[in-house]
Amino acid sequence: MPGKIYLFPVPIAETPIEHVLPAYNRDCLAGIRHFIVEDIRTARRFLKKVDPQFDVDACSFYLLNKHTAATELNQYLTRIKEGFDMGILSESGCPAIADPGADIVRMAQEMDVEVIPLVGPSSILLALMASGFNGQRFCFEGYLPVDKDQRAKSLKQLEQRSYQEDMSLLFIETPYRNQKMLEDLLLHLRPQTRVGFAYDVTGPDAWIKSKSVAEWKKHRPTLDKKPCIFMLYKG
Amino acid sequence: MPGKIYLFPVPIAETPIEHVLPAYNRDCLAGIRHFIVEDIRTARRFLKKVDPQFDVDACSFYLLNKHTAATELNQYLTRIKEGFDMGILSESGCPAIADPGADIVRMAQEMDVEVIPLVGPSSILLALMASGFNGQRFCFEGYLPVDKDQRAKSLKQLEQRSYQEDMSLLFIETPYRNQKMLEDLLLHLRPQTRVGFAYDVTGPDAWIKSKSVAEWKKHRPTLDKKPCIFMLYKG
Repeated sequence: MPGKIYLFPVPIAETPIEHVLPAYNRDCLAGIRHFIVEDIRTARRFLKKVDPQFDVDACSFYLLNKHTAATELNQYLTRIKEGFDMGILSESGCPAIADPGADIVRMAQEMDVEVIPLVGPSSILLALMASGFNGQRFCFEGYLPVDKDQRAKSLKQLEQRSYQEDMSLLFIETPYRNQKMLEDLLLHLRPQTRVGFAYDVTGPDAWIKSKSVAEWKKHRPTLDKKPCIFMLYKG
Repeated sequence: MPGKIYLFPVPIAETPIEHVLPAYNRDCLAGIRHFIVEDIRTARRFLKKVDPQFDVDACSFYLLNKHTAATELNQYLTRIKEGFDMGILSESGCPAIADPGADIVRMAQEMDVEVIPLVGPSSILLALMASGFNGQRFCFEGYLPVDKDQRAKSLKQLEQRSYQEDMSLLFIETPYRNQKMLEDLLLHLRPQTRVGFAYDVTGPDAWIKSKSVAEWKKHRPTLDKKPCIFMLYKG
């Protein structure tokens, strides 16, 4: 019998495990000793946090990042053919969402391996829930272009789509450029367009607010340092 | 001090609570006696399932569905101004995602009420995680048109977008039309385009598989009866 692949979400902020992960995830971890991970040290720390008794030294860890070659990924999956269950752990949030992991899941699908995704925190989804924007149609765009002109064009296109298709648009930025992104949004979008910020989602400084561009211009929030999801929707 | 709004996900399939909800959600529920719900009977059942000791009879329930007028929603929110915390419970999954609830969250945002989204199961997100499709750019489209020609056009547009924008596309259908949707996908999409089905996610019959259209044509799965997420991505 071949093994299965379990996708284990991890916390996205400084928060107790039981705030953001179902107890069942710990039960699933208990039977797994082969883990595909973005960073071995944080993976070990996570496993110990979930269960201090977890025998981390008995585990094999396989590194997955943008430098990992497809041939290596294929080798990792031979463990599954040998009958071992494997876990995929990302650095933060849900494996394969805005994050590496999708490639190995694709290979697992091609090999007809059973893939079992587990529940956990997604800043994208939590941000959208709390925004008040359209949750029947939404789009996550990842990172926008950094180039000034291309970014302005991209923001206007997304805004246009939100009006034409009644769609919520979400995207991210590296934290040290968050404040710049905020300024770009206020500069390029229409005054009535609604903009949402989801800052440090599930963390100690968490807040999620949406207002019109005109309203935000009166009171600019501080977004530096921690991860933020940016959202826009027609006004 | 005004109250806060908590968004409580509920299970999306026949599954024990601790499989899909963090223990923290129960702690948050403990202090709340005002609930905005899609269906009072299922809300009561959910609360009792989370905590058999929960004093459901001491709770006030406020009905939220597509017939609820904005004036009523506004009245619900007066409880918050009076200092009470409120919970929003959808019928299934995450409030305000592919589901009512976004309107009342928007009003809460306009009133500057703090909105706290809690972690729980989203069939959309779990489907995408397990698909192996691009999780850096994805779009949820809700329901596609039912009309034959419009649906064919819509499917071809989504396929086009997946190739042009390197984007995963997700959508849903009412379960009794799932099998028809499957046939439409196999009829209208290119042979190399990849299609994913996420059936009864987190439930006893759960499976998530993605293959090319050409592969699916050789072995058609049975999708009737239970909820299914449909996904497509460039081949």
